[in-house]
Amino acid sequence: MPTKQQLQQQYDEIKAKGLNLDMSRGKPGADVLDFSNDLLKLPTDYKSAGSATDCRNYGILDGLPEAKVLFAPIHGVSPDNVIIGGNSSLQMMYDSIVREMVVGSWLSKNDKIKFICPVPGYDRHFAICESLGIEMLSVPLSADGPDMDKVEELVKNDASIKGMWCIPMYSNPSGTTYSDETVRRLAKMPTAASDFRLLWDNAYAIHHLSDTPDSLLNILDECEKAGNPDRVYMFASTSKITFPGAGLAIMAASSRSLAFILKHMGFQTIGSDKLNQLRHIEFFKDYSRITAHMKSLQGVLKPKFVAVLEILEKELTPFGLGKWHNPNGGYFISFDGKKGTAKRIVQLCKDAGVVMTSAGATFPYGNDPDDTNIRIAPTFPPLEELKQAMEVFCASVKLASA
Amino acid sequence: MPTKQQLQQQYDEIKAKGLNLDMSRGKPGADVLDFSNDLLKLPTDYKSAGSATDCRNYGILDGLPEAKVLFAPIHGVSPDNVIIGGNSSLQMMYDSIVREMVVGSWLSKNDKIKFICPVPGYDRHFAICESLGIEMLSVPLSADGPDMDKVEELVKNDASIKGMWCIPMYSNPSGTTYSDETVRRLAKMPTAASDFRLLWDNAYAIHHLSDTPDSLLNILDECEKAGNPDRVYMFASTSKITFPGAGLAIMAASSRSLAFILKHMGFQTIGSDKLNQLRHIEFFKDYSRITAHMKSLQGVLKPKFVAVLEILEKELTPFGLGKWHNPNGGYFISFDGKKGTAKRIVQLCKDAGVVMTSAGATFPYGNDPDDTNIRIAPTFPPLEELKQAMEVFCASVKLASA
Repeated sequence: MPTKQQLQQQYDEIKAKGLNLDMSRGKPGADVLDFSNDLLKLPTDYKSAGSATDCRNYGILDGLPEAKVLFAPIHGVSPDNVIIGGNSSLQMMYDSIVREMVVGSWLSKNDKIKFICPVPGYDRHFAICESLGIEMLSVPLSADGPDMDKVEELVKNDASIKGMWCIPMYSNPSGTTYSDETVRRLAKMPTAASDFRLLWDNAYAIHHLSDTPDSLLNILDECEKAGNPDRVYMFASTSKITFPGAGLAIMAASSRSLAFILKHMGFQTIGSDKLNQLRHIEFFKDYSRITAHMKSLQGVLKPKFVAVLEILEKELTPFGLGKWHNPNGGYFISFDGKKGTAKRIVQLCKDAGVVMTSAGATFPYGNDPDDTNIRIAPTFPPLEELKQAMEVFCASVKLASA
Repeated sequence: MPTKQQLQQQYDEIKAKGLNLDMSRGKPGADVLDFSNDLLKLPTDYKSAGSATDCRNYGILDGLPEAKVLFAPIHGVSPDNVIIGGNSSLQMMYDSIVREMVVGSWLSKNDKIKFICPVPGYDRHFAICESLGIEMLSVPLSADGPDMDKVEELVKNDASIKGMWCIPMYSNPSGTTYSDETVRRLAKMPTAASDFRLLWDNAYAIHHLSDTPDSLLNILDECEKAGNPDRVYMFASTSKITFPGAGLAIMAASSRSLAFILKHMGFQTIGSDKLNQLRHIEFFKDYSRITAHMKSLQGVLKPKFVAVLEILEKELTPFGLGKWHNPNGGYFISFDGKKGTAKRIVQLCKDAGVVMTSAGATFPYGNDPDDTNIRIAPTFPPLEELKQAMEVFCASVKLASA
């Protein structure tokens, strides 16, 4: 290991380059978006073949039947269990929680509502809870998913625990996919709250980075089998399949849950943008084209992940600095530095012109108790910029650890 | 007046035609939608000229700056006071109310919340209130707008009155435009609730049916002048300008209100569909093209209103049956039959194959105390079908009144 002075000198040299790079968010780059540019020329017609609907006009609250058929396989459910929403699955999550709080069974307004939050996790999930006054209980995520002994213990005894965030496949940021056993335990576990819900954010359901991808058990089936059919709300979107700003959100749940959701969605809106549904139907035609499309995206994304991992390996492994994983899919690499260094690393990166996700963002209330975790988001920058940014990152890790 | 038997015979003859017509909702017809078909071919580029934003990607919670500039004149406000939403202004209304209830100043959860509802009014407004447990207080709408003596009396004394629905221009269904005096009184009136809000649904702001259109005083200015700058939430959309299913919602409010709204919208979504904003920007380019476009739509819509009015005049006036108005704009003709006949008329229409808006729908809880009001929606059917439907309607009115 070089001396602190040498590390400072290395860092200063990199800083002197005056970079201006952003690795803060899990956004696809233009290289990925370009694969969907034909969407801009669609639809060729405004009629929906399946329903003979004039998609320019009002109506069809739950989405075009063809869109449900096309996207249901992402959740592995029947099209009957699907709602096609607008351009934001986050909005469907937020609205689902608010709906429970305002007109649903979480109505008991003066009672505290609590959510279980596997950590590290997704800052926007935590922000929703914090903004709505929902208390968050952190549970550690390990290679098989959340620590199920802890989860079971919590939900069994506390009826104010009404929900749990789950990113069950290629979790943000750790890349974890829940094991079959974890999924079964989540479906089966006794809960003190009869209206406990899993907020199942399957954002990376088909976002593989490997030819031997992870697989995930179907939670809706498992909940049904376990006699808890209404326990799960499933979410996905085409945000990281087609366009993040102009894709489709795809929700799934039991028929009883859907009846409740659609009843109240029907007061909120007359329906989502059906022309954008048509656009996606014409673009993909059938599910095999979606899988082929994801393979094309993988061709662009995989080299970025490889580059990050190679630079981490080369720069940090020799000095035993940091822990990270090689994810089979998803959008992130989760990095753990020495205790008490994450904030300092992110600050050093920023001073050298590289914006990372804030340290702490992967924990409820922005509070990483050990100050170790940093979310690396390799997808947005072009490959060359990404390599530069990772040089900055590694120099910052070394300096902060010295 | 013919005998009841003759009227029955006339009705039976019409019924025997086996019509199948729908006049239930305020939907534009294909003839109107066709004027916006070029939108289907747009955008030509995914970059926003004004902000150099890649509109395919995440971001820009409040809408593209160019979209704000383009649509702000509909509200007569500065682009700084505007949020461009998704495809549904109803959703922006619903969300605005829920936001106040869950994280805003209407939080006092066990207290009753009440809204003032001018009648006749819009069933979807009333449905939102009913679904959220908000008690509705009806106030009659006259030629100048709501009965302001009653409104002022109510809001002055009851702090649980937190809101009031207003369709200030070409009101649904009566076609009423609020007078300047009414707007000023709404802006100025003392309210027991310091967080009282006007839900200003300006859905028909530029939807004129006449060359001497109504005009509406700017409520945001008046609220500002009166020292109540945060009193109003303004809503509009392109649903009846371009496509109802795939247009843009346009909200406006004071800068302080917008800060609150955007803070919480930021937890709910990363942003609305910017490609659809681009589409509209490219399609219209500037506001003068929007006004010209509305003139084209008027060319299709006006003859439908004329036809309805001519048939009502010809069939009902000789017998002194019913009251209606000749609206200067909007989407509806409000019809008042003899007391206690509205439900019967709508049922007779239905039996003869013509679906009207349910009787009572224009009143809170679907309860028209006099059972007189029926909303006629002339816009959707082609002109010939509309004439047939109106023959059915008039035969039904005559039979029900006999």
